Amino acid sequence: MSSAAELDTVLAAGGPGLAAGLRRTEERLAGAAANHGEVLAGHAGGTLAAGGKRLRPLLLLVCAGQEDPGDDVVAGAAAVELLHTATLVHDDVLDGAPLRRGRTTVFAAAGRDAAVAAGDLMFARAFAELAATGCAPAIAALSEASSALAAGELAQRADAWSPSVTVARYLERCRLKTGSLFAAASRLGALLVGRRADVASVLGDFGLRIGLAFQILDDVLDVSGPADRTGKRRGTDLLDGTVTLPLILARERDAELASLDLRADVRDAAQAEAACERVAATGALDEARATALGHVESAKAALAGVELAAAQRRTLAAIADGVVARYA
Amino acid sequence: MSSAAELDTVLAAGGPGLAAGLRRTEERLAGAAANHGEVLAGHAGGTLAAGGKRLRPLLLLVCAGQEDPGDDVVAGAAAVELLHTATLVHDDVLDGAPLRRGRTTVFAAAGRDAAVAAGDLMFARAFAELAATGCAPAIAALSEASSALAAGELAQRADAWSPSVTVARYLERCRLKTGSLFAAASRLGALLVGRRADVASVLGDFGLRIGLAFQILDDVLDVSGPADRTGKRRGTDLLDGTVTLPLILARERDAELASLDLRADVRDAAQAEAACERVAATGALDEARATALGHVESAKAALAGVELAAAQRRTLAAIADGVVARYA
Repeated sequence: MSSAAELDTVLAAGGPGLAAGLRRTEERLAGAAANHGEVLAGHAGGTLAAGGKRLRPLLLLVCAGQEDPGDDVVAGAAAVELLHTATLVHDDVLDGAPLRRGRTTVFAAAGRDAAVAAGDLMFARAFAELAATGCAPAIAALSEASSALAAGELAQRADAWSPSVTVARYLERCRLKTGSLFAAASRLGALLVGRRADVASVLGDFGLRIGLAFQILDDVLDVSGPADRTGKRRGTDLLDGTVTLPLILARERDAELASLDLRADVRDAAQAEAACERVAATGALDEARATALGHVESAKAALAGVELAAAQRRTLAAIADGVVARYA
Repeated sequence: MSSAAELDTVLAAGGPGLAAGLRRTEERLAGAAANHGEVLAGHAGGTLAAGGKRLRPLLLLVCAGQEDPGDDVVAGAAAVELLHTATLVHDDVLDGAPLRRGRTTVFAAAGRDAAVAAGDLMFARAFAELAATGCAPAIAALSEASSALAAGELAQRADAWSPSVTVARYLERCRLKTGSLFAAASRLGALLVGRRADVASVLGDFGLRIGLAFQILDDVLDVSGPADRTGKRRGTDLLDGTVTLPLILARERDAELASLDLRADVRDAAQAEAACERVAATGALDEARATALGHVESAKAALAGVELAAAQRRTLAAIADGVVARYA
């Protein structure tokens, strides 16, 4: 969903209500960081303003399906993006990352202390936004997702450089780290407009599968490149020791890859590039892509069981296709 | 409130309902960390089990004033302690602290990554506990406090080693860092049993002032010692560059202290000890204590304007006196 063309397709399907909702979400995000001390507001505001795909607010707005999104829905859209951004800011602290979304990270600009505090503030503001709606099931859904994000982050770091990460373990990590918040965003959209719990649950399942597909395809892209499209060098996951689906599948097919010690053998860009080539040569990328596409298809199929407005159904399908198109 | 005698006085005033509430809060805290991955549960559970004064749950339970605390109130008590502990875990990351409450910190035991994630999990669980109550004003109060804690943490670090921190700035930091969560705990107690907003507000004001007194007296103790009572060496704040009320007041009275450069001149335990002696010699400790006692008195006075059960009023007074007694 990073390219303008894919977003345009979704916005066209969603109509003026969706565009207005996204605009108001931006305004709300800009306001959320203010009033908590100038320094903190600067760090948090700058990070939020740096943007991103706003996929989670988009899912929430479409699942809410209002022609003129109400304040509660916009608050929810801001809340999911605040939570997402909070985790990114903390991830950057742990990674010591200098850049994110093409901008200097809070960590790099202001140091570890400011970045941990700015992330904590964004966590707090996420719940403050949602608390303003008075919708307790929505708050419960966000806090569950927030727990899952923390667990996912830790699981990923626990698995770093491991030679024995299974496909099941990898998928569970994707669920925790990415799927849970996509699911929560979709559920929140339904809950905040008072839809029945079973409808919220189906939409949550849609979001979960889209999130899994998104994460898998993102991991494929890290191996496949090209760098001029992804904005980062190939194999950054391998250099970080992050074991993703392409490598797991490739290890099953190539004994030499199976015995590769990431920590010892993949230490610079050239070695990472070579490892990516070798993973690609096994056909693992196609298999990983197929897994992701399977999740997208099952996401779309899940929608058949729920009553939705025609425009809403069309827009959700456009989001699902957009996730795939991004990586086509 | 660290000594058994002071807690006994409060528990005697609070009766069996308070003791039962605290017991059930412990059980709830033990459960809150579970079910989020073994590793994370280990870090979070260990930190929570390490205990602490449980002052915030205590305030909440007393302000709720139930003879048999309901699930919502116990959930709130667990929530405020989870939030408090989350901030301690993150503080330890920033300080690189090896010990907390006499135990190895998550940071020291498992590293920065695990500690940031464990703190994030505790943030998430705090809101999950409160979301289960369905009480939106309570969730709003907790998220406001959570924002204040982040802002306070950052303000303290921004002020580190500063020669120009004013009393007003220091008190604002105390409000953000300590008062806000004491206030939220007290308000939550009232809100979770359905008391009127004005009653919640008066109790919140009581909590705020108790929190201010608590923080000021804690800062006095860091200078006054003795170490065998506080469990840490005198002058740790000075060594950290944390400018607190005793030093601010002493600088006004002693030109040599006013020109002391903490970063250059207070770098080891002996220099910290000497600086503490010099601060004490100005009479600044007595003035700081008097400021704290003023807040305790105004906290107690605030209670006059609100309808409370006799036992509840007695217990709140015992908590206020306990904060003072701890430092007598």
